[in-house]
Amino acid sequence: MPADFLHIEKTSGTARLGRLSTPHAQIQTPVFMPVGTVASVKGVPQDTLEELGAQIILGNTYHLYLRPGVETVRRMGGLHGFMSWPRAILTDSGGFQVFSLNELRKVKEEGVTFRSHLDGSSHFFSPESAMEAQIGLGADIIMAFDECTEYPADQARMRASMEMTARWAARSKKYFEEHKHEVPWTRAGTDVFVRPAERSSASSFSEGGTTSESFHSAQNSGLRPSGLTNASVPTCSEETQSLFGIVQGGMDRALRKESCERLIEIGFPGYAIGGLSVGEPRDLTREIVESTLKHLPKDKPRYLMGVGTPEEIVEYSNLGVDMMDCVLPTRAARHGLLFTSEGKITIKQARYAQDPGPLDPNCSCRVCQRYSRAYLRHLYASNEVLAQVLNTIHNLSFYLDTMQRVRHSISLGEESRFLSGVWSQPKP
Amino acid sequence: MPADFLHIEKTSGTARLGRLSTPHAQIQTPVFMPVGTVASVKGVPQDTLEELGAQIILGNTYHLYLRPGVETVRRMGGLHGFMSWPRAILTDSGGFQVFSLNELRKVKEEGVTFRSHLDGSSHFFSPESAMEAQIGLGADIIMAFDECTEYPADQARMRASMEMTARWAARSKKYFEEHKHEVPWTRAGTDVFVRPAERSSASSFSEGGTTSESFHSAQNSGLRPSGLTNASVPTCSEETQSLFGIVQGGMDRALRKESCERLIEIGFPGYAIGGLSVGEPRDLTREIVESTLKHLPKDKPRYLMGVGTPEEIVEYSNLGVDMMDCVLPTRAARHGLLFTSEGKITIKQARYAQDPGPLDPNCSCRVCQRYSRAYLRHLYASNEVLAQVLNTIHNLSFYLDTMQRVRHSISLGEESRFLSGVWSQPKP
Repeated sequence: MPADFLHIEKTSGTARLGRLSTPHAQIQTPVFMPVGTVASVKGVPQDTLEELGAQIILGNTYHLYLRPGVETVRRMGGLHGFMSWPRAILTDSGGFQVFSLNELRKVKEEGVTFRSHLDGSSHFFSPESAMEAQIGLGADIIMAFDECTEYPADQARMRASMEMTARWAARSKKYFEEHKHEVPWTRAGTDVFVRPAERSSASSFSEGGTTSESFHSAQNSGLRPSGLTNASVPTCSEETQSLFGIVQGGMDRALRKESCERLIEIGFPGYAIGGLSVGEPRDLTREIVESTLKHLPKDKPRYLMGVGTPEEIVEYSNLGVDMMDCVLPTRAARHGLLFTSEGKITIKQARYAQDPGPLDPNCSCRVCQRYSRAYLRHLYASNEVLAQVLNTIHNLSFYLDTMQRVRHSISLGEESRFLSGVWSQPKP
Repeated sequence: MPADFLHIEKTSGTARLGRLSTPHAQIQTPVFMPVGTVASVKGVPQDTLEELGAQIILGNTYHLYLRPGVETVRRMGGLHGFMSWPRAILTDSGGFQVFSLNELRKVKEEGVTFRSHLDGSSHFFSPESAMEAQIGLGADIIMAFDECTEYPADQARMRASMEMTARWAARSKKYFEEHKHEVPWTRAGTDVFVRPAERSSASSFSEGGTTSESFHSAQNSGLRPSGLTNASVPTCSEETQSLFGIVQGGMDRALRKESCERLIEIGFPGYAIGGLSVGEPRDLTREIVESTLKHLPKDKPRYLMGVGTPEEIVEYSNLGVDMMDCVLPTRAARHGLLFTSEGKITIKQARYAQDPGPLDPNCSCRVCQRYSRAYLRHLYASNEVLAQVLNTIHNLSFYLDTMQRVRHSISLGEESRFLSGVWSQPKP
């Protein structure tokens, strides 16, 4: 981790405008990270993600570990080379997915035995193996292996779980420090090397817009498997991945505080708040986030995992969260639920069958610029694949534009006044 | 139909290089038409189709009639406005699809009663109602209602079927001539008007390349539902659709000749060869096509329906066919079958799991320029929607590039020497 990993450019109340420097890209924060579970943001080609202004995407270690497997990805130069994505990537630790398996897992101090949801085969994740997998996948930011405490849970259970997560965090860090140079950008012995992008300078980064020059140059300068273009792809600089710790502690504010303290004692370049959005009321989520943030270092990035609605990403940005991810925009799109400045649209409704207007009159995405609600409704009703493609592009555009507006507000020292409060309500 | 509907620029043997002038675009022939059954080439956004150099796409009247319905499309300015496609469109007559329903149809002289494959509801298509539907859909080129003779069929059946098709062709033309001004580009009383594209001049058309300036200007000048952009969209010029006749006659050369003669007597601006690729051997297809072409006017476009493999579209271009369509590139893509200059690739094969090379080293499409076989194999194996999107883009690119090379060969007066003969064979 470089000393200037997070540069805070401006604050406004509790909100922070920052610049996060990762090996493959500089990221303007607060940032929303689209989820690309198995190295694909479902239905959206990578060049379209670039056009949408996605700065960093998320991959799921559990899924990628099962298919195509870490070794395949590592040989292709890590996820960047494998999926031909020149910007930043974050992988989760696999913990959340493994704990979602419920009947299929068994937790011990050493780690978790679980069965694949694909074929029922048995696997084992420990802090060490989760690190090994994430180093092989080669994301810019990786996560310590944690236990996501279920909700509800009693006090003893929340404490025990938080304490194990803290011990696992220490083991994660130890393994990472010993092996971080094995990341596929630098390692000799991989079949394919990938050169990280030229760092985008803050001044050249085209805030929230289409592909910036620096990204273009990154993409053109060799961020592909060497089989595709240039035979000589140099090895990376000495930069390595950044490992984040994950705060747990259930819905108990004191345990959350203790979790923060224990992680800070171990020392990480960034901290995530995990174990939320697991079924608890929204007010409680907000309360836990707000109290937890107070115990995290101001000079380090804070990542709120798995959140949330358009209103929530604005709200948590204002509370001082720097990074968020959520499947909501992509998953909702697949179900025909579309976020607009006028409220949420269920595109299958008959009212849109002959509606010539754009999905969102205030949106400049390629979907709203070209297609009518009537056409999108027809595609969805006809079960056409293009429905998923276009719906996902729009919802991601809405989320990414929302974050751009949040950043703009912070830069002006304003509250995010544009927050209408109706986005997740159905359009009247 | 303008007097200069088809301008033959060059011939080479039996092959012809031409320029077909439709209300929405000029088309360089021979041309391959991607199939967009329900107003979408499955999985491919319209701007990507433009980039691929698709000049004209095909819509299926039967499917569009059932969903979203002709009236919905008509109100949106026809298919061009509905799907926001500024270039040319052709619709089939519905005949082939209806005759594919087998158990669900009943044919009489008046027309065909059939049941919807969607909900079992009962419908009736006649030459008149098929014309009414196609005028409402507003494609540039529309097809007479025909009976697609089954294979095999005896002599009496082939004759009777061919004769009914001829009578239906006369009725189709009569209805069309009486109603052709009702096309939604010109008709008062539609909710939304669509302005046709500025005609691309032959000189400005960027042969087979990415979006030409003229197409850009067409798109920007109002080819959308008015709800999307400009409130004032002028009505069209006095140009109307072009109605093609369809040659039938089964596998009998004399009946095919007679079918040509009867259609020519009725008089159409273009002629299609239907009733082939219905299960007969490939040699027989070729024999019938070759003999039928001799009886069609040299100054009118000839459209071979539902053909074929990459080799076949080259072969039939060389025989003098000007237009072809086929679901093969798009359907094969969905099954992971990819055409390349080295042969056909079944991308799910394990041999590609760690292959860092592009799908086709000789292809300049955005898929081959960016992604590895390993990644495409992973997407397909993981059942990701992006697999279908990228596979379809590549296969269409292969087909459209092949036709571009055919046109280039004809322009040089050469045989299509690049025809390797291995495209549809598996890659070694």
